[in-house]
Amino acid sequence: MTQLQHNTPEELERFFQKGDLIPAIVQEASTGQVLMLAYMNRESLQKTLETGYTWFYSRSRQELWNKGATSGHVQKIHRIFSDCDDDTLLLLVDQTGAACHTGSHSCFFNEIWRDTDE
Amino acid sequence: MTQLQHNTPEELERFFQKGDLIPAIVQEASTGQVLMLAYMNRESLQKTLETGYTWFYSRSRQELWNKGATSGHVQKIHRIFSDCDDDTLLLLVDQTGAACHTGSHSCFFNEIWRDTDE
Repeated sequence: MTQLQHNTPEELERFFQKGDLIPAIVQEASTGQVLMLAYMNRESLQKTLETGYTWFYSRSRQELWNKGATSGHVQKIHRIFSDCDDDTLLLLVDQTGAACHTGSHSCFFNEIWRDTDE
Repeated sequence: MTQLQHNTPEELERFFQKGDLIPAIVQEASTGQVLMLAYMNRESLQKTLETGYTWFYSRSRQELWNKGATSGHVQKIHRIFSDCDDDTLLLLVDQTGAACHTGSHSCFFNEIWRDTDE
């Protein structure tokens, strides 16, 4: 069972003041690991809130995308936060399998810089 | 002291194939808390890599922005990761003071949805 809070279609418009897509950060609830970032349009956000599983909008394919629909690697949502100016979302999820299409658990596996003091 | 890895200006072009700005997720290294998301252009990414502190590009003010330059709430970077398709960055930082201009430690303080099973 899931619960909506002030999230009618009209109220959700606050997330689309700067554009038709809002970036959504997906973080694993149990470990805190950041898994991926993807984009939501109005319809995918609505489906996410209705189902409790992540739906995104693919900019390259220009279509809705139910994460895990083909791979089985679904993301069950615990909590969703918006940021201070309502232009980014943060989703805490249970990740089944790998979040990344490469098979990596997280999409952020390329380290490009490190503080050498560390 | 900081260390660059294959990050000449030419090599950094891989992060700007989809646009002139790349979203950068800022996560607190010690706690795993996601603090904010902001955008980098080529120049702010270069300054970030050179200094080991975060520089962003403000879309509203259309200028470079050294996080904490006025508030003192700087972000010292431990590690930077890119994602599988080089269109998002993840920065693990030590946050001095609050990341959010509201005074909140994280910008993600508005909970908009929760799984009622939880």
